[in-house]
Amino acid sequence: MLNFEIPADVPEEKIDEYIKNMNEITGGTGRLMLFAGDQKVEHLNDDFYGEGIPLDDAHPEHLFRIASLAKIGVFATQMGLIARYGRKYPTIPYLVKINSKTNLVPYEIRDPISLAWYKFEQVLDFKEKSGLKIYGIGYTVYLGSEFEHKMLKQAAQLIYETHQQGMVAVLWMYPKGKAIKDEHDPHLIAGAAGVANCLGADFVKLKVPYKEGHKSAEALKEAVLAAGNTGVLCEGGKKEDPEQFLRELYEQIHIGGARGNGTGRNIHQNTLEAGIKMANAIYAITVENKTVEEALKILKEEIL
Amino acid sequence: MLNFEIPADVPEEKIDEYIKNMNEITGGTGRLMLFAGDQKVEHLNDDFYGEGIPLDDAHPEHLFRIASLAKIGVFATQMGLIARYGRKYPTIPYLVKINSKTNLVPYEIRDPISLAWYKFEQVLDFKEKSGLKIYGIGYTVYLGSEFEHKMLKQAAQLIYETHQQGMVAVLWMYPKGKAIKDEHDPHLIAGAAGVANCLGADFVKLKVPYKEGHKSAEALKEAVLAAGNTGVLCEGGKKEDPEQFLRELYEQIHIGGARGNGTGRNIHQNTLEAGIKMANAIYAITVENKTVEEALKILKEEIL
Amino acid sequence: MLNFEIPADVPEEKIDEYIKNMNEITGGTGRLMLFAGDQKVEHLNDDFYGEGIPLDDAHPEHLFRIASLAKIGVFATQMGLIARYGRKYPTIPYLVKINSKTNLVPYEIRDPISLAWYKFEQVLDFKEKSGLKIYGIGYTVYLGSEFEHKMLKQAAQLIYETHQQGMVAVLWMYPKGKAIKDEHDPHLIAGAAGVANCLGADFVKLKVPYKEGHKSAEALKEAVLAAGNTGVLCEGGKKEDPEQFLRELYEQIHIGGARGNGTGRNIHQNTLEAGIKMANAIYAITVENKTVEEALKILKEEIL
Amino acid sequence: MLNFEIPADVPEEKIDEYIKNMNEITGGTGRLMLFAGDQKVEHLNDDFYGEGIPLDDAHPEHLFRIASLAKIGVFATQMGLIARYGRKYPTIPYLVKINSKTNLVPYEIRDPISLAWYKFEQVLDFKEKSGLKIYGIGYTVYLGSEFEHKMLKQAAQLIYETHQQGMVAVLWMYPKGKAIKDEHDPHLIAGAAGVANCLGADFVKLKVPYKEGHKSAEALKEAVLAAGNTGVLCEGGKKEDPEQFLRELYEQIHIGGARGNGTGRNIHQNTLEAGIKMANAIYAITVENKTVEEALKILKEEIL
Amino acid sequence: MLNFEIPADVPEEKIDEYIKNMNEITGGTGRLMLFAGDQKVEHLNDDFYGEGIPLDDAHPEHLFRIASLAKIGVFATQMGLIARYGRKYPTIPYLVKINSKTNLVPYEIRDPISLAWYKFEQVLDFKEKSGLKIYGIGYTVYLGSEFEHKMLKQAAQLIYETHQQGMVAVLWMYPKGKAIKDEHDPHLIAGAAGVANCLGADFVKLKVPYKEGHKSAEALKEAVLAAGNTGVLCEGGKKEDPEQFLRELYEQIHIGGARGNGTGRNIHQNTLEAGIKMANAIYAITVENKTVEEALKILKEEIL
Repeated sequence: MLNFEIPADVPEEKIDEYIKNMNEITGGTGRLMLFAGDQKVEHLNDDFYGEGIPLDDAHPEHLFRIASLAKIGVFATQMGLIARYGRKYPTIPYLVKINSKTNLVPYEIRDPISLAWYKFEQVLDFKEKSGLKIYGIGYTVYLGSEFEHKMLKQAAQLIYETHQQGMVAVLWMYPKGKAIKDEHDPHLIAGAAGVANCLGADFVKLKVPYKEGHKSAEALKEAVLAAGNTGVLCEGGKKEDPEQFLRELYEQIHIGGARGNGTGRNIHQNTLEAGIKMANAIYAITVENKTVEEALKILKEEIL
Repeated sequence: MLNFEIPADVPEEKIDEYIKNMNEITGGTGRLMLFAGDQKVEHLNDDFYGEGIPLDDAHPEHLFRIASLAKIGVFATQMGLIARYGRKYPTIPYLVKINSKTNLVPYEIRDPISLAWYKFEQVLDFKEKSGLKIYGIGYTVYLGSEFEHKMLKQAAQLIYETHQQGMVAVLWMYPKGKAIKDEHDPHLIAGAAGVANCLGADFVKLKVPYKEGHKSAEALKEAVLAAGNTGVLCEGGKKEDPEQFLRELYEQIHIGGARGNGTGRNIHQNTLEAGIKMANAIYAITVENKTVEEALKILKEEIL
Repeated sequence: MLNFEIPADVPEEKIDEYIKNMNEITGGTGRLMLFAGDQKVEHLNDDFYGEGIPLDDAHPEHLFRIASLAKIGVFATQMGLIARYGRKYPTIPYLVKINSKTNLVPYEIRDPISLAWYKFEQVLDFKEKSGLKIYGIGYTVYLGSEFEHKMLKQAAQLIYETHQQGMVAVLWMYPKGKAIKDEHDPHLIAGAAGVANCLGADFVKLKVPYKEGHKSAEALKEAVLAAGNTGVLCEGGKKEDPEQFLRELYEQIHIGGARGNGTGRNIHQNTLEAGIKMANAIYAITVENKTVEEALKILKEEIL
Repeated sequence: MLNFEIPADVPEEKIDEYIKNMNEITGGTGRLMLFAGDQKVEHLNDDFYGEGIPLDDAHPEHLFRIASLAKIGVFATQMGLIARYGRKYPTIPYLVKINSKTNLVPYEIRDPISLAWYKFEQVLDFKEKSGLKIYGIGYTVYLGSEFEHKMLKQAAQLIYETHQQGMVAVLWMYPKGKAIKDEHDPHLIAGAAGVANCLGADFVKLKVPYKEGHKSAEALKEAVLAAGNTGVLCEGGKKEDPEQFLRELYEQIHIGGARGNGTGRNIHQNTLEAGIKMANAIYAITVENKTVEEALKILKEEIL
Repeated sequence: MLNFEIPADVPEEKIDEYIKNMNEITGGTGRLMLFAGDQKVEHLNDDFYGEGIPLDDAHPEHLFRIASLAKIGVFATQMGLIARYGRKYPTIPYLVKINSKTNLVPYEIRDPISLAWYKFEQVLDFKEKSGLKIYGIGYTVYLGSEFEHKMLKQAAQLIYETHQQGMVAVLWMYPKGKAIKDEHDPHLIAGAAGVANCLGADFVKLKVPYKEGHKSAEALKEAVLAAGNTGVLCEGGKKEDPEQFLRELYEQIHIGGARGNGTGRNIHQNTLEAGIKMANAIYAITVENKTVEEALKILKEEIL
């Protein structure tokens, strides 16, 4: 039995490919541990260099080292970055994050807009020529931006094209811009989740909903319902205490109904060893169905 | 005898296909019961979750359950959503609502703009490869928006391409934006209806005209005349008392001259059973030429 | 001898076609009676329903009835509208008005912009597949709009493509927008006429120049000179007393040097019978070289 | 020996064609007398009708009469206008001025933007099918406009495509818009000349630099240096006393280092006879290396 | 052993070509001396004419003379300029700077936007037809501009296409615009360097970071780390005392970790002889691993 739906825009001759791709990146569980590594554009060097961040993280290769040595579902980053390190790290399961923007332009100057850097055919061409293990694409939509119509269209196009090849499509669905008052409003996040389902996404990465100012796995339920058969991934957000992070993750999955997570800083803002352990712990909860306690043990094992 | 015109942009070799499509979705009557299910984007989660809405409606599959079990003309929704549930619900008659926007951006920030998510060829490709029963496309034009020129062009293109394949084109024709004072003005709505005819649409979904602040089937007549041989569908709007809704529908058709309706919330903001019954009742008045009283009986039958 | 020039962008093998087209729509005279029927978009329902307008005019088919029963040069309207009635009215000589906008957006919100609804190849494809008598295309340019560069380019492209097929191109050349102080200034209108010649148009429809606040056939002369070998058509404008209208028309041609007219409301804001007579009277003066008195007799004949 | 460089983007097989074209339009001298006739769009009817302008100039054919009877290098005007008179005037050497805008939109409403009316392939197609002697294209770039990036790109593209065919490319390089304080600043004009060289133009038409409020051939030197191997043409500007005009022209060439001129109003704002003589006098100085006195004699000869 | 990575978007059959190209322009060292010659557009004539600038520099051929006689890695300039002088200077190693803008439009009017003047295929076509030694392309991205999304996309596309041909891609990565407070902030520059790596660039030209208002090789380290395996080039900036310039260059490489430099004014704002010497001295430090003292000797040798 499959732990996911096969979308109707995956053509007959690509169904096996789609099943294989989904099973490989979710360990057959339908749950996805997504190692998010697109922040060198999205946040420039803020996430990689500065107080409290180990120097290991200053060099982009750090991400590839972790991704190649830890258990992960997919490593999501820009295709250009994959191109620069791919020959050295051919075993990583990649997801091409196809659009990205910096955080330099304030919304008062311009509402957020992030357009695809590549045509889908280029991603496919790159996958085939390089032989790298590219499982799908990721795309961010800023709902509520005055340019949402451009991103909605690109998202729809890219998901259709991705499914045509039996590959996997993940949306980052973030209401942002001048018109958005509260990015963590559970009802708004549920709306974004529903849009992802209407766009045909396999997974949707969402902001964590807040209840009375705090993260709430309970408040996630509305979004999980609204997302229908699109799997909900919660974003990892800022670096936190590992134990707290893993407990939140566990609750998102077991209380909120999330089907995975998209975590970046909580993994890479560590030394190589600590980063690998953290990724493995997250994978354990997400895919291997482990408890928080079991996951915490992983953080204490020696691995290198 | 046909209850509709064959547009001259349907080529000779596609006339039979066009007749078949129109007859199937209108039960041979030329009247269309359109189950509108595009609100998960248009209104986000507002129409699906909250006070007074049964929890059934929180999951998008609810729409497909109703559409597959009730009598309907077409179920209109985004192609991505059709893709995610289509393998499970292959018997539903679908209409691809090809553009959609959220309600997050106020007109002061940007006049409404909603552009097609797909090229028509992709819809056709999807129809052919999936084998789903897709009868046509739906498209919204916001007349009076400063971007109306973009939507007028897309509408014209899409209708032409749809007719080239013998398929059916429905316009949602809504004057909206900073320049529009009263969306329910009968004369304005009639203008919108005329534009739909000039664009070549088979059906046009309109706001309900108001007379002295109230819905008026009488006031619809100007629009029905202006629409010429394009069939007028009134939008269903907010959830109402079922009996009142069915009476209004009856009057729109028998007084105003409407050739159908486009109803969403009044169907799906119900339990599955109540939703099916309501759809059947609407179908009865629209296509089966039943009275309001006959339709009300349907609401009281046991069906599941 | 021909009463018109053959433009050099009509290729050799299409010259006969061009001559045939020009002769058919001008009765061999080089003068064009253009029945303008694009107002259902341009003016919404204002021109078709309301005080003083016969109810006949409320239904779009009224235009086709007149066009098929009266003497006209061409009936200019949107291709979508032609598609909806074309099978029933195959004898009408059509001109596809390829761009249109509504009157809803004030210039303070956005300067006028009207872009082509179709690619020229689609018009050609429609002509060939439908077998309808389509003689050419019409296009409006709003000079002085901050978007004039988009319309100038489209006009140039469309005229070139039209001539490549030996068909006829008519421009509606209207200076409008925030920067335009007086749309009826003879010198400005002459400028617009010159632009039409530079764009390669066969005919140009212009606003009527005013002298001291009144229409002036004398003031038209500058525009006729500036238009060179592009034939000037004066717009018909608001409904007037038929006799006055016909006198003005006669003077535009015989004093001002116009080579025709583009008339809508003065024809269709009538009962079917009166509309046909008015069209015939206009045709008599424009093409049949009749006097005003002869034309007025036509208005009094019984025809139906 | 050639009086000009062969650009490296002229392919081997087109070098002979390029040399032939350059030699024909410059009489083998590398100096170009360009008869500028694009003002019917750029200035509407202001340059052609009004006080002090002979009535001959009111009809566009006036330009063609002069161009066909006088000695000129090329007659530069819109392709649509060439199309309308080309069959009658097949001997004129033409240059297609491929973009044009009117003077109606003030910069406060929108910075100047002028985009190509045709694709280059259409110009080539027109040249080949019509058999007219089209030697190249002309394009205006408004440096300093907030839309300069669009014009820089089009200019680069068009020059490349033109050279691919062994044809000649002329730029009108005019800093204009809200950000430009002084269009006649010699240093700014030199900057514009340098940009033309970087774009690959064969000739660049520039504003005349002013020194202390007056035209200065001396001040032109900086621009001529900056233009490198792109030939500088000074614009003719407003109608002047013929003798003064010819003296300025002589100095622009012999002091400033100009390689020609682009003159419109000083030629066509004359009767046919005077216009032909003025063109011949300009040609004499520019191409035939005559003195001002010799050129003045031409103005007094009887020719018609 | 190679001194650079082979990106994974260079296809197998182009790897040898890529290695050859990189080795030729870096003398096998992986360090690039880039002679920047795009300022005739970027700064108009300000860098080439005026007080303190030798008259040699006023003519664009000056750049080609230096580039052909000095030791350089690549000469980066607009393709149009290469086309105009390329036949005379066929031995220069060229890099096509594919986008450029002037400095005329202030950010208050419009944030910086610079789009590619050519499609990559045109550069390739030019390279092949002309036989010129074109090694790659250069492209500027203005991060923080409200149009960064357009430039990010073009950069990604162009780098991908360039690598597909085994050619080299260099980014000019400059945060600029209304939202940018300090272009010389080391952390911001490091962010820009990281974006270049994510875009897949081989080299990135950066602003020099400042520490307490002064250039700082130390402060460059963060950017060099963030750039990963993309080589950092510091921009040369304004003309300086040669010795000081060379010391700074040496420190950028040996303290900061730069892999080269992009120098324009410090080379060409000299007489031909001095310019050649300065280029050679820069090459000596960058590629030939010489000390500042050795490089200074080059400035004193007689060469012409």
